[in-house]
Amino acid sequence: MIDRSTLTATAGNAGVDAAVAAARRVVNALLHAGNGSAAEMAAVARQLTEVAEHLEQHAPSREDRLVDMWAGEGVTRHDPVTGPENAVAPPLPLHGLPDGSIAGTVTLGLPYQGPPGCVHGGISALLLDHTLGVANAWAGDSGMTGTLTLRYHRPTPLFAELTVQARQVSVDGRKIRTTGEILAGSEVCVSADGLFINKHLPRPR
Amino acid sequence: MIDRSTLTATAGNAGVDAAVAAARRVVNALLHAGNGSAAEMAAVARQLTEVAEHLEQHAPSREDRLVDMWAGEGVTRHDPVTGPENAVAPPLPLHGLPDGSIAGTVTLGLPYQGPPGCVHGGISALLLDHTLGVANAWAGDSGMTGTLTLRYHRPTPLFAELTVQARQVSVDGRKIRTTGEILAGSEVCVSADGLFINKHLPRPR
Repeated sequence: MIDRSTLTATAGNAGVDAAVAAARRVVNALLHAGNGSAAEMAAVARQLTEVAEHLEQHAPSREDRLVDMWAGEGVTRHDPVTGPENAVAPPLPLHGLPDGSIAGTVTLGLPYQGPPGCVHGGISALLLDHTLGVANAWAGDSGMTGTLTLRYHRPTPLFAELTVQARQVSVDGRKIRTTGEILAGSEVCVSADGLFINKHLPRPR
Repeated sequence: MIDRSTLTATAGNAGVDAAVAAARRVVNALLHAGNGSAAEMAAVARQLTEVAEHLEQHAPSREDRLVDMWAGEGVTRHDPVTGPENAVAPPLPLHGLPDGSIAGTVTLGLPYQGPPGCVHGGISALLLDHTLGVANAWAGDSGMTGTLTLRYHRPTPLFAELTVQARQVSVDGRKIRTTGEILAGSEVCVSADGLFINKHLPRPR
């Protein structure tokens, strides 16, 4: 049975998704290791370069890949917030709620650090911009970000479960207003107000 | 001779920096490959998992690593925008200019995509939040983001050289106002206005 309120791609445990999950683990482990580590970094660099070369040799052209990424009408699998094919993404899964809002939970580690032990303000902006956009899609009218205002109420902790939530507030012609927050427990760490414009770029074909 | 106007860590070609550069190449290649690729994804997942396990076995404790990351007075090497130790970072190198502003150039690929062929609005927010913060450090009074407003003037292209620039506008007690832009050629794609508060979290020790 399909959970119709799941608004983001679900990672599979095989194919590119499994390789990306392993790559995400490498990115995190490299940052945990640093130069003080006894790991054999030259060997690690060689192994990773071999993997990259293998992948590059078998990759489609950029043009073909862009067409493939944007084919179909489902959720994206490649974006830097929710994408199971993108190791930059934490990833953040998002779900639609009966009241029309959306929400997801995520725990962020060292790759997303800004101030000591805290989430980078720009990473909070990235998560909120994307979540506001998905909230618009869930509400039925979506578009591109026109203006986004972020307010930082308190430091957002790393290594703690965060809730990211958003909801569409109004639609006036092509102007869409959307709001959202990142919470640690019941405390709002960052809030966002967005003005989106109901306009979409053409898909590559 | 040290270039004193370089405001971000310079990547070395050995140690963890070289391994991170290779990891960045893997992240990009995985996204280019997708599931349509003929690459042996199960083997790739196994190789990457082996690398992660080797790194994790030799990593210091999280507490020790946090102390180490924040030791010294230089620029950070781990942040998700400029950090040579962070494969999430493009990375964006930043330089101080004689007029007091700062700037850097970067070309972004598929991991940073939002709309088809364009930079994700949240990635633009990430780059600008960080660059405004570095502009404050260069000007002498810095702090944490209080409010950040982003205006999206036109789509920001992937695969094209972008200029990211910022400058401190005013300091009024603990309130710091800072502004910046992302340009493609001479066209402003995204602009940002930030209010920063001169406050710093304690470093781990």
